[in-house]
Amino acid sequence: MGKVICIGLGPGDPELMSVKAHRLLTGAGIVAYFRKAGKPGQARRMVEGLIPGDAEEWPLEYPVTTEIALDDPAYNAALGPFYDHWAARLAGAGGDVVVLCEGDPFFYGSFMHLHSRLPRERVEVVPGIPGMAGCWTATGLPITWGDDVLTVLPATLPQAELARRIADTDALVVMKIGRNLAKLRRAVAAAGRDESAWLVEYAAMADQKVTRLCEAEAVTPYFSILLIHGQGRRP
Amino acid sequence: MGKVICIGLGPGDPELMSVKAHRLLTGAGIVAYFRKAGKPGQARRMVEGLIPGDAEEWPLEYPVTTEIALDDPAYNAALGPFYDHWAARLAGAGGDVVVLCEGDPFFYGSFMHLHSRLPRERVEVVPGIPGMAGCWTATGLPITWGDDVLTVLPATLPQAELARRIADTDALVVMKIGRNLAKLRRAVAAAGRDESAWLVEYAAMADQKVTRLCEAEAVTPYFSILLIHGQGRRP
Repeated sequence: MGKVICIGLGPGDPELMSVKAHRLLTGAGIVAYFRKAGKPGQARRMVEGLIPGDAEEWPLEYPVTTEIALDDPAYNAALGPFYDHWAARLAGAGGDVVVLCEGDPFFYGSFMHLHSRLPRERVEVVPGIPGMAGCWTATGLPITWGDDVLTVLPATLPQAELARRIADTDALVVMKIGRNLAKLRRAVAAAGRDESAWLVEYAAMADQKVTRLCEAEAVTPYFSILLIHGQGRRP
Repeated sequence: MGKVICIGLGPGDPELMSVKAHRLLTGAGIVAYFRKAGKPGQARRMVEGLIPGDAEEWPLEYPVTTEIALDDPAYNAALGPFYDHWAARLAGAGGDVVVLCEGDPFFYGSFMHLHSRLPRERVEVVPGIPGMAGCWTATGLPITWGDDVLTVLPATLPQAELARRIADTDALVVMKIGRNLAKLRRAVAAAGRDESAWLVEYAAMADQKVTRLCEAEAVTPYFSILLIHGQGRRP
């Protein structure tokens, strides 16, 4: 019986995956990755040229992505059976399967939904550089100093909740911006922090873009993160 | 004029450094790393066998570590000139210098104090897997799901402040535990979360240890992180 090994690929640049992830990927017999039906998928794009020529590729195509709201019961009703199906298929592959994951698998990653459906002894996770670390590196400034508190928020939270938490932290990372950018902007303004917020799009990729929030116009919904750098104690 | 390139080494296992960090390290002419005087240093230990035989090694020995409290003005008075001195030496090396950094350089890393003293065009940072990602991977459980909020706290904060923030987050990471473990335990208890807190020592190293906080006895001060996993939305 093989193992299901999820490798974190890091923020975007293939050279930022770990030596271990690279070793597992280039020696893989079966490589699986999530994608939207009909799209190549970002994880697959990141490993172009690294999958062995004789490896099998198993694309795991989401039955739904942004067409149904996350809090609509129909969303979980569609996704649950999808994860059940693939957890069973990966476990029954008859050999090791390497599953690709952007960023770090245990930090808001889709693989967690397969992981929770697999026996512990059949699954292994190789951590990766989270997307947010690629983003703060792209700004050229440290995210936290000394006693700084860092808060990571999903932009899916209600505006008042976002504003309250943005006002109550030193350093900030906001993920899952997508359709929530206008609400997030209002929350940052309500917290009085527009001047210090930065948007990073496509961190560690060819089209990386770093903009001050107050100067940002069109923003790429999926590959974007908002940051505020901590300003804590330093010698 | 050379560059000062800081490479994040990740949480502990040398195979978890990025392919890029590995390439820069194994091709380095000068390798610099922080350490406590008279100790080998954890960053140096992690790269054993990877530094080219003909490379120069420059240990940057802290003039003070835990002998002076962080909020004592004498601490910054000792550290400021130390960072000034080494920023000037690294910039004047006459070639590229690779600086080692555990975890991710811009996430509470010592390199930030050299970075802020160097001209932007002379310095480069290669992100790494933060220690906390090694820790949550070691627990075998995801840290954040769905709309979970993640808070990262330094245990150096006052107890009441720790308790307030621990009660007000879904997922939690506490860094810099050191001498603050007793205070941190009281704060976790005051927030009513002792049952869900985990301590991870030496993540991704040979002596890795994962314990529930309520069962933890002696804890290694330096290489330990406290975690509470988020329990958010999932299909």
